[in-house]
Parts: sequence; C-alpha cells; structure tokens
Amino acid sequence: MDTKPALRSPTITDVAEAAGVSPMTVSRVLNGRGGAGEETRRRVLEAAQALSYRPNAFAKSLKNDRSNTVGIVVPDIVNPFFPEIIRGAELVARPAGYTLLSCNVVEDPEREEEVLGMLLDKRVDGLIICSARLDDERLLRAIAPHRAVVLINRAAAKRHAGTIEVDYRAGVEAVVTQLIAQGRRRFGFAAGPAASQGGRKRREGIEAALARHGLSLVFDLPCTPDLQGGAEIAARLLPEIAQVDAMICYNDLIALGLMKPLEQAGIRVPEDIALVGCDDIPASDLVSPALTTLRIAKQDLGEMAMRMLLDRIAGRNAQQGIVIEPDPIWRATTPRLPG
Amino acid sequence: MDTKPALRSPTITDVAEAAGVSPMTVSRVLNGRGGAGEETRRRVLEAAQALSYRPNAFAKSLKNDRSNTVGIVVPDIVNPFFPEIIRGAELVARPAGYTLLSCNVVEDPEREEEVLGMLLDKRVDGLIICSARLDDERLLRAIAPHRAVVLINRAAAKRHAGTIEVDYRAGVEAVVTQLIAQGRRRFGFAAGPAASQGGRKRREGIEAALARHGLSLVFDLPCTPDLQGGAEIAARLLPEIAQVDAMICYNDLIALGLMKPLEQAGIRVPEDIALVGCDDIPASDLVSPALTTLRIAKQDLGEMAMRMLLDRIAGRNAQQGIVIEPDPIWRATTPRLPG
Repeated sequence: MDTKPALRSPTITDVAEAAGVSPMTVSRVLNGRGGAGEETRRRVLEAAQALSYRPNAFAKSLKNDRSNTVGIVVPDIVNPFFPEIIRGAELVARPAGYTLLSCNVVEDPEREEEVLGMLLDKRVDGLIICSARLDDERLLRAIAPHRAVVLINRAAAKRHAGTIEVDYRAGVEAVVTQLIAQGRRRFGFAAGPAASQGGRKRREGIEAALARHGLSLVFDLPCTPDLQGGAEIAARLLPEIAQVDAMICYNDLIALGLMKPLEQAGIRVPEDIALVGCDDIPASDLVSPALTTLRIAKQDLGEMAMRMLLDRIAGRNAQQGIVIEPDPIWRATTPRLPG
Repeated sequence: MDTKPALRSPTITDVAEAAGVSPMTVSRVLNGRGGAGEETRRRVLEAAQALSYRPNAFAKSLKNDRSNTVGIVVPDIVNPFFPEIIRGAELVARPAGYTLLSCNVVEDPEREEEVLGMLLDKRVDGLIICSARLDDERLLRAIAPHRAVVLINRAAAKRHAGTIEVDYRAGVEAVVTQLIAQGRRRFGFAAGPAASQGGRKRREGIEAALARHGLSLVFDLPCTPDLQGGAEIAARLLPEIAQVDAMICYNDLIALGLMKPLEQAGIRVPEDIALVGCDDIPASDLVSPALTTLRIAKQDLGEMAMRMLLDRIAGRNAQQGIVIEPDPIWRATTPRLPG
C-alpha cells in the first residue's frame, strides 16, 4: 500500500460520491438491507474498501447499546502482578467478542478518577478495577454510572460491583504461624502502600498469628511496592537488624529489593533473617536463595474477573463475590519445613 | 453513595426534564454560552450532577476533531519490556491532556489487526505500536486510516509512521566482538520469535562479528520470548553442550530460563558457557550470577515515542525517525572485562 487515503475519516457521503450512488443506497448496502442491484452493491463495497470506510461505531453502539469493549484499570503496569491479570482477562474477553482496553494510573488516585470518567466517555460495556487507589466514597461515585464493574482486591456491596478478593489475611497468618513454630519471634512488616486494603489484611494476618503467642510486630513501615521500596526498607532496617529475625513483605518486589543490601551487609538469609514475599512473580524463583512467597494464580484471577464482568454485563449472577486463598510457596529464604 | 442513578447513560433530555427546562437551555448552560438566569443555571448543574450526566464525548470529539485519547499496542503485556514503555508513554501523555489506552495482542497477528481497527472505531488521535507482529503489508493497511502512528522496533517510510528503532545489530556485534577477544569461539543463538525484525538484526550483529574471525553460528534456534522458551532451548542444547562456549539470547527472559537447567546439569556460567541476554529487565540484576545484557532505557523509549506521536498529531516533525543504541551491561555471566 503506497498512498494513504486522502481523508482521514471518510463519511458515508464520501463513499456515496465515489460509488456514484446516494448515501441512502450506501447505508442500505452496508447494512445488508437489500434493495440495491448486484452491480451497485459491488461498486459500494469497492468504494468503501478503497476509502477504508468504517461505519460509525459510536452510532452503531448507541443503536444496539453495546460497544463490545471493556476496560481494565491497574495502579502500576510495571508491577508484574498486573500484566498477568490483564493477559487472563484478555484471553476470556476475546472469544466472547470483546476488546480489552487497559489503563495504567501510575499509583495516582486523581488519575484513576479521570480514567474511570474517560472510559465512560468511550462507552465501555464494563470495567475491571485492580487494587483501586481511590477511597471507597470516591470510587463508588466514579463507578456508579458504569453498566457493570468488577473490583479486584476491594470490598463493595454487590449492587455496586462484583468483587474478587484475595484472602491475604489467611495466607499471611498461615506463613507467620509456621515461622513461629520454627522459632522466629521478632517480626517486621514491609507494609507497601498505606492506602492498600490488601496491606491492611496482611497486617491483620501477621498480628493474629503473633497475638496467639503474646508477640507483636517490632517493625512496621509503609513503602512503595517495588524494588526501590525494598532497598529503602533495607536502609531503615540495617542499623537495627538484630531486632528482627523474620521480615514479611507486602510483595515479592519489596522482598527482592531487600535481598541484595542484606547480602552486602553480611546478613544471612534465612539463618539470620527469614524473608517472605507475596505474589510469586517469575523473578522470585530465579534468585538465590529463591524467595518464599504466597502464590496467587494471577492469570486465573484475570480470567475469573472477566467472566464475572461478562456475567454482570449480561445481567446474570449479580450477587457474586469470589474469595481466593493464596498458597504458601516454601522456598529457600525461610528455614526448611520439617518432613 | 447508596443508589445508582436509574438511567445508565442519561441524555440531555433527562437533564432538561429533571431541571424543568428545555434541552436547548441545558446545552447552553453546560457549554457556558450564557443566556440563562442564575437560578436556571443552578438547577441545570444540579440536575446534571444528580444524574451523573456526561456530555456526549463522541459528539464533542467530532466537533473539535480530537478525542484526546491515544492507543498503545503491545505483543505481550507479560513481557517486562513492554510495561515500562507503557509507563513512559503514560507519563508524557497525561500532562499533554491525553489518556492512553493499552491493548495486548498476546503475540497474535490477527488480534493485532482487530485491535488496530477497534482503536480506529474509538477515534484515538494516534497510536504507538510496539514490535508489531503483522507483516509489513498488513501493518501498513491497518495503520493507513489512522491520523498519526509511531512504530517501535519496525522500519517504515516516514509518510506512514514515525519510527523508533533499537540498533540491536550494533549492540550485539559489540558484545560478540568482546567475547571473541576473550577467547570464545563457539556461539549459539536463542533467536526468539521467527517473525521478529529485532531478532533478525541481532543475528546480523552476531554474524558480522563472527565473520571477521572466520567463524559462524553453531546453534541457531527460534523460541518463544519467555522463560519457557529458555527452558526449551536448554533441553535442546544440553546433549550438545560441548559444542558451544557462548549463548546469545534474544532477550533476558530466555537467558534466565536457560540458567537454572544449566546449573542443575553442572554447567558453570561463565566458565563453561558465557550467557548474554537483551533488555535489562529488573530480574537480570537480581539473579546469581547476575546476567550480562544489553540495556535499553525502556521508560525513556516510551516517553520518546509519545512525544513523537504528539508531534505527528500536531502535524510537526513528520520526517522524524529515532535510532537508539543499546548499552552492553557487563555482569557475571560473561568473563571479567580486562582492566
């Protein structure tokens, strides 16, 4: 193809002129309503193709009340937790005839609000919001005009949105209970973003396990949920490193960011300090020692969320909420399990 | 917020009814054209807010010929190379008043074609395509109706699209030349997707360096550009491992996928075999031994691409093509550099 069509967005009138027929005839042919001869039909289709004419999708979507697009909003596309969810959602959306538009809000609640409005303007049929950074009130206001919404990692009344929640509390509690059984007593928590509901649940899990043994957290600091956040926690932790013998991290990136500074300071993992992440991103099994973590089947989670969204768009199962319990994956940053 | 508005997509007529005025008055007030009293103005604004009314964005965008949205299309969102590009593009788009919609085509050329058409339907003002999987002819046909296009990792005449190309050939040639100087002679290439233009350039770089020393590749196999692809290459390579003393990999994921099977088979890196990746994803500096690779400043690349796209949308600098040369990052999977 050597030339671009002269008009960027050809109209039905352009097609009619090129084919030497009336716009009404073009409309009839393109909508398959008959009433035009074979030769006319051929001329219209050729003209439409030559001009790269596309019937006005917005007008079409108003007519059948569907745009066949859905949105997914994530706080940070660079965090490997979210791309896998997007891939899972995409794999379910496509065979259902939907296209998925992803938006990255770069951890900014204001941007999240803007993006939710923009997706409404684009007439998406529904949307999935991962780990929303807006507070409940603003989030509910922003999703209210949408036809169908699924929230991942945020509670909501089912009349507002379907929900898929990971039971981080149960997962973290199980891991901490095991570490206590192995003799660890002095726990620190690299807590991730202060506004995260998932972070609060992880803390509840740690505190529940500790409380049963009369223990409490000796170190609890928020940080960005990335490698840099882990490095910053390391800098805070190292002067008081003898205070802790186990660190629970909000996610794997933070734990991985902690590992190198600890190693450089001569701190042995897991002998001096046990290290636990969350998410099971691919890098966690590649590092030495390999990272103990909580696995969430991220692609499955994305697939589930999209199926739930398609159900809600179709008016089915609108009471549904799903809870996923993460699996502890014991690797080499924690002491060997007995047996 | 306890109740959802009764209507999903309230119209200007709904607002008019709720406010007890004519639709024309609503339009006047919402477009700031005056001609309505203060009390009327207040009633209209309250009704619009109560109904969550949003002026029809599509009609507005037709009027000023801008939707203020741009698209970015990537082959696989789970490959960490692409999320950083998306973040860079987002960071430039936002202050310019644009919202970025991302689409993941899951390595499928058919899907890529569909998505490019859908983004046209959504009236994006322009789009960035990363590592297109369509062949040149189909790609040019799919982008022709778009107002402005930037291609990352694909050559094109500048009347069709702005381009940002990474000079993998030069980068790989420099690395292989250095390894030859250190005595390596038997090179293998884990080549990534057969259709990748970037893969062909890497091969040219290897072959140019080898040819100057009368050498040629002893192993050259395509693979998927992920950890699994690396594991499959390892299975093919291990029975003939003595044939090679250096492996150049299409990307870091493949190299990381190779490392564990080599280690388990007792092959020492870099003593028995040197290993080089490409992209410099975060995991590459976290593994032991840390991976030698070619660094591309991915977020910068995304920022550059978005600035180029905004220029093209505004009709500026339409002849621009940018070439980026990747930096070799020498780490521990290759012999120590002299000095």
